[in-house]
Amino acid sequence: GFATAAQSNKVTIGLIPADGIGREVIPAARQVLESLPKTESSPRFEFIHLDAGFEHFQKHGVALPEETLARLRGECQGALFGAVSSPSHKVAGYSSPIVALRKHLDLYANVRPVASVAGSGQKQLDMLIIRENTECLYIKQERIETDANGQKVAYADRKISEFASRRAGQMAFNMALMRDKLRSTLPESERLWKGKPKVTIVHKSNVLSITDGLWRETVRGVKENNPTAYAGVDMDEQLVDSMVYRMFREPEAFDVVVAPNLYGDIISDGAAALVGSLGLVPSANVGDHFVVGEPVHGSAPDIAGQQKANPVAAIRSAGLLLEHMGYAADAARIYKAVDGVLREGQIKTPDLGGKSTTQEVTDAICNRL
Amino acid sequence: GFATAAQSNKVTIGLIPADGIGREVIPAARQVLESLPKTESSPRFEFIHLDAGFEHFQKHGVALPEETLARLRGECQGALFGAVSSPSHKVAGYSSPIVALRKHLDLYANVRPVASVAGSGQKQLDMLIIRENTECLYIKQERIETDANGQKVAYADRKISEFASRRAGQMAFNMALMRDKLRSTLPESERLWKGKPKVTIVHKSNVLSITDGLWRETVRGVKENNPTAYAGVDMDEQLVDSMVYRMFREPEAFDVVVAPNLYGDIISDGAAALVGSLGLVPSANVGDHFVVGEPVHGSAPDIAGQQKANPVAAIRSAGLLLEHMGYAADAARIYKAVDGVLREGQIKTPDLGGKSTTQEVTDAICNRL
Ligand SMILES: CC(C)[C@H](C(=O)O)[C@@H](O)C(=O)O
Ligand SMILES: CC(C)[C@H](C(=O)O)[C@@H](O)C(=O)O
Repeated sequence: GFATAAQSNKVTIGLIPADGIGREVIPAARQVLESLPKTESSPRFEFIHLDAGFEHFQKHGVALPEETLARLRGECQGALFGAVSSPSHKVAGYSSPIVALRKHLDLYANVRPVASVAGSGQKQLDMLIIRENTECLYIKQERIETDANGQKVAYADRKISEFASRRAGQMAFNMALMRDKLRSTLPESERLWKGKPKVTIVHKSNVLSITDGLWRETVRGVKENNPTAYAGVDMDEQLVDSMVYRMFREPEAFDVVVAPNLYGDIISDGAAALVGSLGLVPSANVGDHFVVGEPVHGSAPDIAGQQKANPVAAIRSAGLLLEHMGYAADAARIYKAVDGVLREGQIKTPDLGGKSTTQEVTDAICNRL
Repeated sequence: GFATAAQSNKVTIGLIPADGIGREVIPAARQVLESLPKTESSPRFEFIHLDAGFEHFQKHGVALPEETLARLRGECQGALFGAVSSPSHKVAGYSSPIVALRKHLDLYANVRPVASVAGSGQKQLDMLIIRENTECLYIKQERIETDANGQKVAYADRKISEFASRRAGQMAFNMALMRDKLRSTLPESERLWKGKPKVTIVHKSNVLSITDGLWRETVRGVKENNPTAYAGVDMDEQLVDSMVYRMFREPEAFDVVVAPNLYGDIISDGAAALVGSLGLVPSANVGDHFVVGEPVHGSAPDIAGQQKANPVAAIRSAGLLLEHMGYAADAARIYKAVDGVLREGQIKTPDLGGKSTTQEVTDAICNRL
């Protein structure tokens, strides 16, 4: 992380609940981290609360305070971000703090695992989406003009660079190998993905031959230029429209999927629908020096403050955070506890058809750690 | 149409099978049009064969011949387009002929109805997607540079204009009213959508506040500036990522959905997955002067030439073509025949789990006209 841990295993995590249900699910994730059994190798946590979000903007005129960034850089080894509300119309001076955070901390890959829980009655899938996290239309270079007829015309730049595409591609191939290694430790019956690890490259180069052409070529190059390292990983590709179609028809056909920023955003919400709720899907915004865990869901203002939010996505995001900080065993413990609660299927929030509160689900997970 | 019919009810249709299964499904659609009972008010068809496609490009160096465009403009009142193959890597000088056709003929709205057939066991939905068809990233203004480190950086322009957004929006609100009128003639039990007609605006203005902001504002303006005309139509909105999620969770929550070009492309493939096959979903590329029917599926090179292609999407596209040319009764006859065959569920192609050939399905539909 940016800030080096002062004593071994001491880990400082920045907590940024931001808006809406972020304020319920981030405390839930914190409780789970604090409830982890304290082994020799497991981390000792310190948490610091940090501000950001649309509500913060409304009160103080800034969505991502300088202090939040400075303390993340100066004091933290990782962070958890809740969710951010989107104003329904343009608000002068406001810009999404999570998009800004990804950029400022150079969190270049958004890692989004979507997997069904065996025995839970969900559609069977075990997919990892790697979303390029720094460019595409998210560079937010936009302009507006008035044409000769007095009509408005707006433009946005979509940027695809060799540099960013290669980093995202490398992450995808490395994660494919890592997942394969992990799977090989499982009994055959618990492996959903049975084949050789595979990376599927998503693009739309039949229309965007230059930008998505560069993306496609560069990600392919990761394997083609490292034939030995990645000999064990298959590679294929899907146009983004076909990807959404196939993902719904045969989600079991995908292992690791790597996509430019906007396609990755859309695909991961689609994949969440397959496992039954956005409230289940975690992500990690990963850079070379820092990781920010972030549930894929939004701030859900309609249910905020009512103990109805599903804490699983945030809790799994805390697991991803640990995993990417090098504490794989502790992460695995969290995943296992969550899967246990989901498989049992008794204690669940309303998004999954249950009646339990955020706190009850969190407690149930903590009890299984 | 561009070419005015010489004698009343004489209609000249350009047939552009293009690549792959386009060569099987376009003849199927033609057979259905020719099999329509000849009533007083129904059209008398003439068909002319026109070239386009990737294979044509490979042989003759041009994907959309000048002659095809000239004959569409000079002789036809409408057209049917099959499907086009996409080369998997950039081919110098090649550019998608369907994207070019939409642009040259100013076919500004792509109308994509996706509905389940009552009694067919499909998920229940009855949705009409209006996809803006002329701009967004499809303007294909792209450039590539080399940066100071010798790395490539590519950019694409995304264009959103007030003019194009308004036309697409107007189409959406008008279609919402028209669908409502049509539904009111059906018995209650056959209406899937029971509420007030609704237009859902898809955007991503939380990130693209200027381009998608202009889109959102302009489409909203269609209703806000015509409060009387559209008083009967509800309006709401969805971020594109949430749209894909919600569409899979509650497809019954949508009536008319209007989206910028690329989002519309992705959403319509997603919706196709909900009704069981891309082979069922038709579209019409609609302008003020011309209509081109086009199945939403691709050229499917893996099954081309084997009589395995589902002709339903192309046949329904022929129905949409008639509908938009003012022959609603003949269109309705086609839809009803198709629904009858699907509901019966005996004669179906492999994509729907059947063993029938393209020809058998086509014949079954013709027999019900
Ligand atoms: C809130 C929004 C800016 C964000 C995004 O589009 O990246 C969200 O949808 C996500 O997926 O994290
Ligand atoms: C073939 C391709 C250029 C086309 C598109 O993206 O518009 C297709 O996917 C469609 O939906 O008609």
